[in-house]
Amino acid sequence: MAKKLSRGVAVVGVGMSKFGVFPELTSRDLFVEAFQELRQSVQKGFDPKDIEAFYMGNFTSDHFENQAHLAPIVASWVGLSPVASTRIEDACASSGVALRQGALAIASGAVDVVLVGGLEKMTDLPGAKVTDALALAADSLFEIPAGFTFPGFYAAMATAYIDQYKADPDALLRVGIKNHENGGLNDKAQFNQTIPQVMAGKRKKAEQKGLPIPEWEDEMAFMKDLKANPMIAWPLRLFDCSPVSDGAAAVLLVSEELASKYTDSPIFVVGSGQASDGALAERESLSSVPAAEKASQHAYAMAGIGPEDIDFAEVHDCFTIAEIMASEDLGFFPRGEGWKAAMEGQTARTGSHPINTSGGLKSKGHPVGASGVGQVVEVWKQMHGIAGERQLPGTLKYGLTHNVGGTGQTCVVHIFEKRN
Amino acid sequence: MAKKLSRGVAVVGVGMSKFGVFPELTSRDLFVEAFQELRQSVQKGFDPKDIEAFYMGNFTSDHFENQAHLAPIVASWVGLSPVASTRIEDACASSGVALRQGALAIASGAVDVVLVGGLEKMTDLPGAKVTDALALAADSLFEIPAGFTFPGFYAAMATAYIDQYKADPDALLRVGIKNHENGGLNDKAQFNQTIPQVMAGKRKKAEQKGLPIPEWEDEMAFMKDLKANPMIAWPLRLFDCSPVSDGAAAVLLVSEELASKYTDSPIFVVGSGQASDGALAERESLSSVPAAEKASQHAYAMAGIGPEDIDFAEVHDCFTIAEIMASEDLGFFPRGEGWKAAMEGQTARTGSHPINTSGGLKSKGHPVGASGVGQVVEVWKQMHGIAGERQLPGTLKYGLTHNVGGTGQTCVVHIFEKRN
Repeated sequence: MAKKLSRGVAVVGVGMSKFGVFPELTSRDLFVEAFQELRQSVQKGFDPKDIEAFYMGNFTSDHFENQAHLAPIVASWVGLSPVASTRIEDACASSGVALRQGALAIASGAVDVVLVGGLEKMTDLPGAKVTDALALAADSLFEIPAGFTFPGFYAAMATAYIDQYKADPDALLRVGIKNHENGGLNDKAQFNQTIPQVMAGKRKKAEQKGLPIPEWEDEMAFMKDLKANPMIAWPLRLFDCSPVSDGAAAVLLVSEELASKYTDSPIFVVGSGQASDGALAERESLSSVPAAEKASQHAYAMAGIGPEDIDFAEVHDCFTIAEIMASEDLGFFPRGEGWKAAMEGQTARTGSHPINTSGGLKSKGHPVGASGVGQVVEVWKQMHGIAGERQLPGTLKYGLTHNVGGTGQTCVVHIFEKRN
Repeated sequence: MAKKLSRGVAVVGVGMSKFGVFPELTSRDLFVEAFQELRQSVQKGFDPKDIEAFYMGNFTSDHFENQAHLAPIVASWVGLSPVASTRIEDACASSGVALRQGALAIASGAVDVVLVGGLEKMTDLPGAKVTDALALAADSLFEIPAGFTFPGFYAAMATAYIDQYKADPDALLRVGIKNHENGGLNDKAQFNQTIPQVMAGKRKKAEQKGLPIPEWEDEMAFMKDLKANPMIAWPLRLFDCSPVSDGAAAVLLVSEELASKYTDSPIFVVGSGQASDGALAERESLSSVPAAEKASQHAYAMAGIGPEDIDFAEVHDCFTIAEIMASEDLGFFPRGEGWKAAMEGQTARTGSHPINTSGGLKSKGHPVGASGVGQVVEVWKQMHGIAGERQLPGTLKYGLTHNVGGTGQTCVVHIFEKRN
């Protein structure tokens, strides 16, 4: 049975820091950057005192920065005390889930104006090792003792997918090429470079060092060069993996009736779905993410639309295989056809189903707790025609975000509508 | 302006594990115990498949158990996958805030049946030191480098309070005596002993060891004996401090219209308020907790009642001074009068304002992420007349819970109503 929200929820502003490596900044500093950009983005302006609740996604500042209880600290840092401040943690889906809580809080009637943020500081850490800390998202009793880390989990999923559908592993490389092509047009992206630009950079560096200048016939030749793009966990290579990043993002949500106070062109949260799952070993199949399928079904039902109505999507490409599986889990392509769609360019900006016009986690960066809200920033920009050189053509009515925690123990999907 | 929820929310069942030290159990095991008791508590029974969302409070399983992303793992452990599963972290207020999110989720219309849990495993840890991990709830940039730990923070607050109101420090000891008197009647309590029982135990142990048998004139003499009750941070002694605990608690929330499907005697969540604050050093005064005052004002406004309507309360007595300040922050007593009320027995079960009939965090135990939901378990028991020997007399219409994170960077207050 489709559930409806008791009242409508609108996005009226967005902001994000640059994603990247910022040794001199803490996560709260990065959030200031996102919040200031958000303030500028609200067409008719807003007084931060309007904010009644702050929902903040963060994976593990506990380990990365020796700091738990981060929500009230960040709220204080940007001058929002005594606003109700809540940290949501669902691994890499933390801020997508925070967005959902913010939307539900408004729909509940308890509050009218909510700031939703996501932030993570993953580089230049005081103590924690980033891979050890990331592994906390898997099951510490069963999965971690078996020797798995996340590239290994997703490599197992990729292997299962390739085997089940007789997929061409080159499809993975095509996802990486496409996301770098988009990220090369996004100045917030950690890797703000297309693959040809990466190739040119490597040639230039070799020339400067007086080393033999590498030559590649084309982008695919570069992606298949094991020296340029080394294998991490078969079939996943370096350019199949999202990076370790610092960053923050923020969106301002208000009740539908208040939207016109802040902007003449809000976007509405018309669908929200979330689902969970057990450890990878407990699943019947590794070639899909059941929680993503279920979360999207809830979101579609709430929105009263289907995958065929979605104009573009930001999906959780922590690894390239994840984007291909997501394109099927979300219903854009039939099971086993996602890899072909990637090969054929259907998910490119010029394709039938544009995915990750921002560059995705792969190129834009993946400060894990910030990624879910970062996706909404791209939806906002595309829907307002302010995405610059990566702007999609035509009218964009429905955009979708898909944010995953772990190997799919959490998935949260949102659908946004632009009405004018 | 008082905010109202878009629809009513009812509690239809509760459960908790025993609080204490359980070296053989993980936090997920403890939650199974709470969940099974909850299942038994639902008068007309319920199918766990009815549950549409799971909100779980936990402070830092990241450090305590090397496990983040705990919500979907716990959901899977009790057979609830693929239910939407969200971890809330606001330090020691984590599960009080989770309760709020669960209530708002139902009020939003997105879901009808929500499981709210809290859990923490703090003893027999694989690596983390419990005091180091607890310190993560304070500001790692400013407070921790200054050398503070939580007994020190609350000692500073106690000192300020005593100075400002010329309070008798014996009032703190009276809070401890009272909470142990209540906890001695609660078989879920970690310290299921009254102070006279503690005294008798110490005498017996001395006798068994052939040591001189200590004698104390009365409970106060025991509490003032620095050998029996050593100073931790003046004026806070051992029996002013809540213990390190393992435990879990759970409540089942449903929309008001569904309540009668599950029970003939629901209790309703009629008020919910949450507020935040900066670090202790940023506050104008240390003798109150502004976030608690603000959270309670929101909760009273939503409920349309005042502190004079509250029949009993479970408050966050992480340290005895916290209970005294809470009794003022919540409006039960005027500023500076809370310590007198404690001295006079007004907060005892037989007093005008019974507080912490469960034994409070002091005697019941304080598995930090579980404490907020644990408070609701006591409210349920008192309102249903099933609190055994610690049962309050008469009709109980309104109960209140008060859950604090850190030194008051987070506070969340709920008001419950029993209508028949």
